[in-house]
Amino acid sequence: MEYRIERDTMGEVKVPADKYWGAQTQRSLENFKIGGERFRMPIQIIRAYGMLKKAAARANLELGELPEEIARAIIQAAEEVVQGKLDDHFPLVVFQTGSGTQTNMNVNEVIANRASELLGKPLGSKHVHPNDHVNRGQSSNDTFPTAMYVAVALELNRVLYPAVEGLIATFQEKARAFDSIVKVGRTHLMDAVPITLGQEIGSWAAQLEYALSALREMEKGLYRLAIGGTAVGTGLNAHPRFGELVARYLAEETGLPFRVAENRFAALAAHDELTNVMGAVRTLAAALMKIGNDVRWLASGPYAGIGEIFIPANEPGSSIMPGKVNPTQVEALTMVAVRVYGNDLAVSFADSQGNFQLNVYKPVMAHAALEAIDLLADAVNSFNEHLAVGIEPNLERIQEHLEKNPMLATALNKAIGYDKAAEIVKKAIKEKKTLKQAALELGYLTEEEFDRIVVPMRLAKPHA
Amino acid sequence: MEYRIERDTMGEVKVPADKYWGAQTQRSLENFKIGGERFRMPIQIIRAYGMLKKAAARANLELGELPEEIARAIIQAAEEVVQGKLDDHFPLVVFQTGSGTQTNMNVNEVIANRASELLGKPLGSKHVHPNDHVNRGQSSNDTFPTAMYVAVALELNRVLYPAVEGLIATFQEKARAFDSIVKVGRTHLMDAVPITLGQEIGSWAAQLEYALSALREMEKGLYRLAIGGTAVGTGLNAHPRFGELVARYLAEETGLPFRVAENRFAALAAHDELTNVMGAVRTLAAALMKIGNDVRWLASGPYAGIGEIFIPANEPGSSIMPGKVNPTQVEALTMVAVRVYGNDLAVSFADSQGNFQLNVYKPVMAHAALEAIDLLADAVNSFNEHLAVGIEPNLERIQEHLEKNPMLATALNKAIGYDKAAEIVKKAIKEKKTLKQAALELGYLTEEEFDRIVVPMRLAKPHA
Amino acid sequence: MEYRIERDTMGEVKVPADKYWGAQTQRSLENFKIGGERFRMPIQIIRAYGMLKKAAARANLELGELPEEIARAIIQAAEEVVQGKLDDHFPLVVFQTGSGTQTNMNVNEVIANRASELLGKPLGSKHVHPNDHVNRGQSSNDTFPTAMYVAVALELNRVLYPAVEGLIATFQEKARAFDSIVKVGRTHLMDAVPITLGQEIGSWAAQLEYALSALREMEKGLYRLAIGGTAVGTGLNAHPRFGELVARYLAEETGLPFRVAENRFAALAAHDELTNVMGAVRTLAAALMKIGNDVRWLASGPYAGIGEIFIPANEPGSSIMPGKVNPTQVEALTMVAVRVYGNDLAVSFADSQGNFQLNVYKPVMAHAALEAIDLLADAVNSFNEHLAVGIEPNLERIQEHLEKNPMLATALNKAIGYDKAAEIVKKAIKEKKTLKQAALELGYLTEEEFDRIVVPMRLAKPHA
Amino acid sequence: MEYRIERDTMGEVKVPADKYWGAQTQRSLENFKIGGERFRMPIQIIRAYGMLKKAAARANLELGELPEEIARAIIQAAEEVVQGKLDDHFPLVVFQTGSGTQTNMNVNEVIANRASELLGKPLGSKHVHPNDHVNRGQSSNDTFPTAMYVAVALELNRVLYPAVEGLIATFQEKARAFDSIVKVGRTHLMDAVPITLGQEIGSWAAQLEYALSALREMEKGLYRLAIGGTAVGTGLNAHPRFGELVARYLAEETGLPFRVAENRFAALAAHDELTNVMGAVRTLAAALMKIGNDVRWLASGPYAGIGEIFIPANEPGSSIMPGKVNPTQVEALTMVAVRVYGNDLAVSFADSQGNFQLNVYKPVMAHAALEAIDLLADAVNSFNEHLAVGIEPNLERIQEHLEKNPMLATALNKAIGYDKAAEIVKKAIKEKKTLKQAALELGYLTEEEFDRIVVPMRLAKPHA
Repeated sequence: MEYRIERDTMGEVKVPADKYWGAQTQRSLENFKIGGERFRMPIQIIRAYGMLKKAAARANLELGELPEEIARAIIQAAEEVVQGKLDDHFPLVVFQTGSGTQTNMNVNEVIANRASELLGKPLGSKHVHPNDHVNRGQSSNDTFPTAMYVAVALELNRVLYPAVEGLIATFQEKARAFDSIVKVGRTHLMDAVPITLGQEIGSWAAQLEYALSALREMEKGLYRLAIGGTAVGTGLNAHPRFGELVARYLAEETGLPFRVAENRFAALAAHDELTNVMGAVRTLAAALMKIGNDVRWLASGPYAGIGEIFIPANEPGSSIMPGKVNPTQVEALTMVAVRVYGNDLAVSFADSQGNFQLNVYKPVMAHAALEAIDLLADAVNSFNEHLAVGIEPNLERIQEHLEKNPMLATALNKAIGYDKAAEIVKKAIKEKKTLKQAALELGYLTEEEFDRIVVPMRLAKPHA
Repeated sequence: MEYRIERDTMGEVKVPADKYWGAQTQRSLENFKIGGERFRMPIQIIRAYGMLKKAAARANLELGELPEEIARAIIQAAEEVVQGKLDDHFPLVVFQTGSGTQTNMNVNEVIANRASELLGKPLGSKHVHPNDHVNRGQSSNDTFPTAMYVAVALELNRVLYPAVEGLIATFQEKARAFDSIVKVGRTHLMDAVPITLGQEIGSWAAQLEYALSALREMEKGLYRLAIGGTAVGTGLNAHPRFGELVARYLAEETGLPFRVAENRFAALAAHDELTNVMGAVRTLAAALMKIGNDVRWLASGPYAGIGEIFIPANEPGSSIMPGKVNPTQVEALTMVAVRVYGNDLAVSFADSQGNFQLNVYKPVMAHAALEAIDLLADAVNSFNEHLAVGIEPNLERIQEHLEKNPMLATALNKAIGYDKAAEIVKKAIKEKKTLKQAALELGYLTEEEFDRIVVPMRLAKPHA
Repeated sequence: MEYRIERDTMGEVKVPADKYWGAQTQRSLENFKIGGERFRMPIQIIRAYGMLKKAAARANLELGELPEEIARAIIQAAEEVVQGKLDDHFPLVVFQTGSGTQTNMNVNEVIANRASELLGKPLGSKHVHPNDHVNRGQSSNDTFPTAMYVAVALELNRVLYPAVEGLIATFQEKARAFDSIVKVGRTHLMDAVPITLGQEIGSWAAQLEYALSALREMEKGLYRLAIGGTAVGTGLNAHPRFGELVARYLAEETGLPFRVAENRFAALAAHDELTNVMGAVRTLAAALMKIGNDVRWLASGPYAGIGEIFIPANEPGSSIMPGKVNPTQVEALTMVAVRVYGNDLAVSFADSQGNFQLNVYKPVMAHAALEAIDLLADAVNSFNEHLAVGIEPNLERIQEHLEKNPMLATALNKAIGYDKAAEIVKKAIKEKKTLKQAALELGYLTEEEFDRIVVPMRLAKPHA
Repeated sequence: MEYRIERDTMGEVKVPADKYWGAQTQRSLENFKIGGERFRMPIQIIRAYGMLKKAAARANLELGELPEEIARAIIQAAEEVVQGKLDDHFPLVVFQTGSGTQTNMNVNEVIANRASELLGKPLGSKHVHPNDHVNRGQSSNDTFPTAMYVAVALELNRVLYPAVEGLIATFQEKARAFDSIVKVGRTHLMDAVPITLGQEIGSWAAQLEYALSALREMEKGLYRLAIGGTAVGTGLNAHPRFGELVARYLAEETGLPFRVAENRFAALAAHDELTNVMGAVRTLAAALMKIGNDVRWLASGPYAGIGEIFIPANEPGSSIMPGKVNPTQVEALTMVAVRVYGNDLAVSFADSQGNFQLNVYKPVMAHAALEAIDLLADAVNSFNEHLAVGIEPNLERIQEHLEKNPMLATALNKAIGYDKAAEIVKKAIKEKKTLKQAALELGYLTEEEFDRIVVPMRLAKPHA
């Protein structure tokens, strides 16, 4: 491989000739062989850093902190980072310094070299300087959390919200379509008073809607950016208006209302906003776990399970049992859910471990959060497309279960009281009779009364 | 012990003569010997149930669902539950049926017997009937989550918010008082550019303020009550307006804007709102862990630690080392923090495990959430009263640390560039010289320039 | 209340006249109002401390470190602690100093005062001195982890192992009794090849046996005691043979092979052995969660669920649905399981947070571990007694499910290959025919061949 | 791209012409777009599956269950999988069916096609059949857990144990080298009685040794293989001796004592052994968190921290603060530790969620466990190589801290009692005097006595 020499304050380093990165990136590459490709710094962080460096150069230009030529070159190079043209130049992994300094320097070095090149200067020349120019008015300590919050907020909007909304729409449509299919309800796994299949599926939509609304609420915390705080929160070396301007440009670029954090000391020292976002993401996972379990149980069988719904048969289910079909999309979804719980723990544990002016678990937090968001989005989309849209009722089985349901007796409470109703149920089960038979034999109601009161659809929609 | 006979649909049961509870409470007492006194159903749940039963009786009266005499007696008995007059009559533990049915019946039985007594009827007479009257229009499945959400929302407001606000106030006062004490900042535990002690403590206040604001936001989810859904969410056996009226009366009684949940199926089947509250409580614990660690590190020593602040010496610290004083209030606080993480996991795990129309982990969720809230409140109050109010600066040590701080060189970046500033720092450390000596020897600045630029207070407040 | 004056190195303190505790206990009581009665230091820790103080006095006597009269009085007073006679004298909570110093001093003070009394000296006289005599050769830093490990090891043996062994015995008996009941197997919740009910229940016993064996293996870590390390692990102020002798006396008293830790520095600074024990306790909870879920699903119905087993009906299940019976013992058990997961997180988080020569999360670790052990023991006993012993097969339902099972076709793989077997299954399901009908129509086997191969019991026990 | 047609029981599928996989792999690829490259099934699972399929073919050959030509071709193809020659043919992700069926079929299809090719038959011909031949006597339900346990056990031995042993060796060497450097001990972060630097570092080695021994103990659970259980644990369609033979061949190939599980029903339905392994891996992470924190605190400063050790300066630490050096290897290590806690939660949550005869969270468990093991191994190696080997004492600072240490007074307890020793300490701190001055002024000892008793090295090694 061809190399060139790059320098930093510790001396010279050999760097691949075809890469824009510099000495510090190279050192990190050699010093942190942890996790490899799987744990490369998420590309969303790199892109957000591109936006941030662009906004910073614009602000510094406006504030007279950078020469125009330098600033313009930085802006152009940063834009290339945003557009993904330089993705190959960000080789570092998550498990590096806990402030993300090495990734900040990776970005600074790549932009500096690319900007130098744009201005006709050789790589490594520091004509555009990674620290003095690209990092002007900044520190890793305020840029990394800024890029992290921008990246997470964008990713929520880009992939997770649309995925969940898509599934909500499917469930709502199914809820409408199955609104008049009365079926047995279940509490404690035991037969309970009737509901409609539409109500059952509608409750899944409602759970997701709430989870999403809470997540959107928590997302707002991410709008409070650390930028402008520099090394410890005081803003040393940044122009007084720098942070505010950068936040405004980031808001323009992303369409999200970013602003500077009220307290930039706290914004470097803890990432409680991200922890709250992960908490809400975990709640979404909890909801999906519940929904997924409902789906697979309702589809269980075909004969020795509940079997009240059909789901698509997407692939042979067993390597040994011929003709078997399994709820595989649910399994993928719920496996993602437990993984999300794990990532949430990593994030929340990390958040508690800051000291003084800095939390040095930033990269692992960023990575775990983005991973969780992407996995959930993928899994929800897959579940929606390959399963949810194909849910159909097994009317025969639904009817069979409904007819035998002893809990229809609940409708009698008002007429004859709880104690007598219980007597009817016990008699019916013990003597394998219908509720009506038992009721008439006990003489608590006339047949006419019974038939008027015990109407499954009226039990399912008592106020309709 | 004296007994009387109570009856339920399964038959007769002997009950202590001096207790208001009935047959189902007694069965639970005998069938669930798990956890004992420590895991008794939280009294906050019982009190909230009292409010709920009172509101239910009022609503049923208004809707013509209960005879006035019966309703009035229930209201009076329920009020006694609210006031804590009947606390001895709720002996059940958390680890019972997962719907909390046995606690609902405990409440129904106690109120029914007490109301019967108020009307001059014997205990066990069911003159006021636990199911047909006290539980009118209700199910455990909608009342337990209602009582749970009411209890948690009240407890947050009653104990946790005031505690945290108290600590914020202390920190803000300290931040003001120590606003001009310049000290070394620390990132990665390493000496960094200066801050003031006021800024440092102010960041703790800011973290708590954010944590509290997020928690208040998540609390709103608790206002959505399950009441009116009865057994499975359909509202069977409840008057159509029942839930709405009950929620209104609960809002009146508590001052919190309770209302019925948009989707009462989901409100029985999952408790995602509570899980989000716990997530936000956990974030508060994370913030307190960070703050507590800062405090004990800053107070560490007296000689071989950081020692920049003094904290109160409340008790002898060691059974073997005479004269030792330890940051014990921090230790209690951070022990509570890890416990809160544990409770949060219990709640969030439980929330994911619902099936169909019901989540049957309600009591453990309620208990773990209330326990976490109470522990945090106690620990924050104790920490505030016995430690935070007594924090004082160790000016001598602060000054000693500040003077040696090589990171003051950061102020030189703009004047001479990052690379030369680094050279100065390295020289100073290696040759054990002051920064100024090193700078002058390297000839990068004049003494006058150096003295003008490197002013700790101006580094700590560059924009002031 | 009557008081007397007690003194410690910080001065005088008023103490209730009828209590043996002294100044430091009283200070803790006043300074740590956190958690209250629920979080009182577990009595198992106090009793283990009693054993330890007795063993320490014996060792010091043998080593000539204490005068005989003093030593004998300490031994007698400590024995009273072991026997529970002084339980009212240990009022402190878990959330105190993280080394447990205040509980060590509570024990020292109570024993010192009681021993002084035994020798005819007034309380508070320090005739027997809490530090110089009772705590001789000890520190909180080595005694608390010692008492913690002794207490946890004893509690495992006293309550958890017998409980789990009892449930294993029940399952094994059921497995034998139901050994020849062939039923449908289930994978992915879908009908699969047959098993016997005995095999199904036997797998529960096997899971518990493994969980127990791993727990016993991890328990061995607890035998390595910190005692003899005193304040930081060096053993300063203890006789060189002190730790070893104390461990030997503790082994004698408890019947468990306690010994001194190979590295007493590590024994103070981390409690990895306890964390591993909690990990194994959590695995037991995981197994119980799985088993509990199996039980409630198998018992679900009565008509619209799986319904292959009957479980005891212990109480009315619903406040609104008359005649409903629920798997309440399972619900209690699985609620305990999620709580155990929470406690495990608290313990493992705490364990990671030690610094230098001490981990200061000892009391919360001890409490969370003991709580988890006791809860599991209670819940397993309750589940065993009130549910497991009463499990009975629903033969009618089992047979109905078995007959329809399309996965019986798996037996045909060897004879006709997987692909043709799958064709038969698909045809049978689609055309609502029996497997045999489908097989014969497709002409892949003769009726005689089919009947010879497809024999449920031979599928369930192919190698019998 | 060129395609060929493959078939399964659901019909025809287009597959890339240059890939060995078949129809079911292709379906999975299209149906599970979740997580992408990052969540590809770990290659360790694929390799272990190669060993397993080879062993299975050998066993089937020996038992007369496969024709020799077919068996030999399978063995050869499987060996190519083991050797990594076919890595490009395993494109599936973790988030697929929860039994890992699709990966089992991927392996079956690749080996079947490659074996057919070896026998001169076209791909897709099923001359060697994926189900009837390669999967002979097997199911995904027993092969996936078998491959999972083999893969995890091998990975522990291949990467994690050597890494941790390497770090232990480094610590032991440092402990020896620094054995006579006396320094202040620290408890509660406060100055405590002295230790040597060698003792301090030796305790890290001891913690790791215990963690490793517990992990090795838990690894033994992985030797119990599911193989031979086929679909539900009964062993249907497998020769009675099949499982035992396969286990023996796997033991031969790997050098680890694999054997068949005592209860193969449990071996499919739960993976408690893996959960226990993860628990022990988590404890290792806890130990590393504690050790890492000690290292960075001891190295903190250079001037305003503890600064008792020097660690290597591997790269510039800050993008804004020139000359700053940070404990970056510790940060990477502790970030890995929190991630491991997350993975442990994912595994243990997943383990609890099995139903009946199968746990369908296998792939996520396998992935999370292997990821944790690899990350820890990488991070420990990196930490060892780039930091631990370079730890050196800062003798000047150590001495400075030691001299001021007031806890040296603990040595006086035996001579003058705890209370008088405390008086000396308090006086010394208050009046800024040395302990000796204070002691003499109080008249509790002569100078000669003081000098004889208070000797730091004798306090650090009292029994030497």
